[in-house]
Amino acid sequence: MKRLSLFPNTTKIEHDTLIICGKSLIDLVDEYGTPLYIYDRATLDAAIAEYKSALQNYPAPSDITYAGKAYLCKAIAQWTQEHNLWIDCTGEDELAIAAAARVTRERILVHGVNKSDADLRAASEQAGTLVIDHLDELGRTIQLFLKHKSNFPNAWLRFQPGLAVDTHHAHTQTGQFTSKFGMTLEEVFEAVELCKRHSLPLEGIHFHQGSNFRDPAPLKLAIDRALDLVKQIGFKDSWHFSPGGGWSVAYHEDELPNPLIQDYVNAVVESTVRGCQQRGLALPHLHLEPGRSIIARAGVAIYRVGAIKQRGERTWLLIDGGMADNPRRALYGAKYSALPVTGLSREMTERVSIGGPYCESGDVILEDLPFPKVEVGELIAVPVSGAYHLSMSSNYNGARRPAVVWLDGNGARLIQRRETIDDLMARDLSL
Amino acid sequence: MKRLSLFPNTTKIEHDTLIICGKSLIDLVDEYGTPLYIYDRATLDAAIAEYKSALQNYPAPSDITYAGKAYLCKAIAQWTQEHNLWIDCTGEDELAIAAAARVTRERILVHGVNKSDADLRAASEQAGTLVIDHLDELGRTIQLFLKHKSNFPNAWLRFQPGLAVDTHHAHTQTGQFTSKFGMTLEEVFEAVELCKRHSLPLEGIHFHQGSNFRDPAPLKLAIDRALDLVKQIGFKDSWHFSPGGGWSVAYHEDELPNPLIQDYVNAVVESTVRGCQQRGLALPHLHLEPGRSIIARAGVAIYRVGAIKQRGERTWLLIDGGMADNPRRALYGAKYSALPVTGLSREMTERVSIGGPYCESGDVILEDLPFPKVEVGELIAVPVSGAYHLSMSSNYNGARRPAVVWLDGNGARLIQRRETIDDLMARDLSL
Repeated sequence: MKRLSLFPNTTKIEHDTLIICGKSLIDLVDEYGTPLYIYDRATLDAAIAEYKSALQNYPAPSDITYAGKAYLCKAIAQWTQEHNLWIDCTGEDELAIAAAARVTRERILVHGVNKSDADLRAASEQAGTLVIDHLDELGRTIQLFLKHKSNFPNAWLRFQPGLAVDTHHAHTQTGQFTSKFGMTLEEVFEAVELCKRHSLPLEGIHFHQGSNFRDPAPLKLAIDRALDLVKQIGFKDSWHFSPGGGWSVAYHEDELPNPLIQDYVNAVVESTVRGCQQRGLALPHLHLEPGRSIIARAGVAIYRVGAIKQRGERTWLLIDGGMADNPRRALYGAKYSALPVTGLSREMTERVSIGGPYCESGDVILEDLPFPKVEVGELIAVPVSGAYHLSMSSNYNGARRPAVVWLDGNGARLIQRRETIDDLMARDLSL
Repeated sequence: MKRLSLFPNTTKIEHDTLIICGKSLIDLVDEYGTPLYIYDRATLDAAIAEYKSALQNYPAPSDITYAGKAYLCKAIAQWTQEHNLWIDCTGEDELAIAAAARVTRERILVHGVNKSDADLRAASEQAGTLVIDHLDELGRTIQLFLKHKSNFPNAWLRFQPGLAVDTHHAHTQTGQFTSKFGMTLEEVFEAVELCKRHSLPLEGIHFHQGSNFRDPAPLKLAIDRALDLVKQIGFKDSWHFSPGGGWSVAYHEDELPNPLIQDYVNAVVESTVRGCQQRGLALPHLHLEPGRSIIARAGVAIYRVGAIKQRGERTWLLIDGGMADNPRRALYGAKYSALPVTGLSREMTERVSIGGPYCESGDVILEDLPFPKVEVGELIAVPVSGAYHLSMSSNYNGARRPAVVWLDGNGARLIQRRETIDDLMARDLSL
């Protein structure tokens, strides 16, 4: 079944039931309840293997930076270290999570379009690399550098290439000229001068064009612009280059086959190598910053059907989670798929829309999907739920954030416990 | 200044600085930091006074139900009780907040399009009124009723009128036929039969057409449909009628003047009284369920400008909050306004866009607003921030939920403390 290939690599059907990493989703729900998020380690490891294999074509050092914004908790940060990944942290709070997971300093990179003084302080103390977004931030960074000098993070600049990629939604494009992110050419030159004046060594250039794109062509153009810039700046021989992340995954069977990680990496590698040769530049230490293409497919959300409604042609399956744990359809019109957890041999005789329990019509996971006829009480599994769900989750309508379970050769274990009512009220004070 | 009338009723300018309820916003930020949400009690009280005054034209009992989904915490629940409001709770978690605030049972009403068994159990034990959304839920409710009978909540049915209102966005329309909410006519009749068979007394009818509408005309049509239904059902003389909530407020000066609460209430009252007279129905106990029009204008979000970027015609003010605490522009394209906290006498010589610190282009609060020229470090106040901000807030990019301060004649006090890094990691377990 084509739809099954949206699920983690270890997914099988046994006794007409979905099995991931040898675990029946029914047994997992019995133990942990719904809504439940599971992450399949094998799928995560395979994505890293694909990245590393493709990067072997790059004839200079390279690293993969996991984009924490896709989903970060202590266990995920710990997992990144088993693969020697860097972690991209946005500000002091994600830095604290990396610290709790004992990520070593040299593997911590700090991003952010508007870092607070606290973010910059935390970065200067904990990060190996600090990516400076704009001139005012550079000024504050230089003040910190002049105070601390020894053991200061490597400083990179975020460049705005003035080119976006096709991401399906304007909100996930970041490289265009009017974007709030990064520095224009002129600002970069000013930044370089400022750094020289205060002897802050500049070690790298970063840009990011947007998230969830599957055509690397605009990326090649942006790499050329960045290399033109590097030529003008005149970096030293060992320099760092990060053309961002954002490679897409298929969320729905209509989007299959999955965009290949190697197509993305090859495009970056070829453009970088050729571009450097053309300009007589030393090959940089190359950094890729994927989040979604590492973790989206490893995650599955499992919900229980609480009600079924017929509205003309439309069959509504109402489940016990929705926009509070997955706001991506409400935010971007994202198109999802799903399967029932049991009874997979049933024919797809229905067309269903799946909505959540929250008081809003935007609280819908998917619309008009071929599906078997299911009953109230059945479990539904939504694949490709690993990225930008839990990291954007809310407590709307008093929703508690779901339990998150990690699946690997050692079995299943909780990596984030379900939120409690006490958690929800922990910040409340009396009138 | 027209824009000032978007702010809470007690807002003044003194020494060129915004003052709310006698408190300088600068002093509040000095004490509580940014991003900061403040709620002005006088504005909340005034909204209730308007509702109560307009409801005096209704010649039978009436009540106002505060829609908890707009923003609920212990202190807000406590405030509702000073005005004898009912509270609409979605499920067991909002019920727990109402219980913590010692809201008496008869004033708790439970909504929800897909209540879990736990929600129904909590409702049967704690609520005065349970609004049943669909037939399967009614079946489970009847089981609970047969077990507990004594002291069971009043049961109402949620009817789907098949008519939506104009709410500016499809995601906030709920009354249309294809919506996931409520029962069709045929389902209501089946529900009535089921209730009769099991001697569960039906006490009321509810519908809700959508949120953020300012033309009550479709509401009148839906009231007529509901009263036709009630006539067919044949309620007893004392019955409850709730035509929902959703009355709009102005978010931007272009949307001024504010839709009048009395226009909304008058439309409901006139349609209900005339409709009942025409059909020979006893006047119901009338319930209105506003959230936004009670609390949106009472809330102000205060942020600090951390960076300013010029991108051609566009001036970006980058602040320290955004879509993590206010996802309404990202979700609905909502149009906001703002003022600087100081230097209000400056001329509006600029046109600014205001964005947050998060790694996404959707993280924007407003675009292209006339504004004075401001400096990095200045404070910005965003009015009409009281509803559907904090209740939909997330920890995206490690954002901690803001502190919330209550302002009244006794001064300022914290009603929700700022989230801490420990809060963010409280659910995390090691790999």
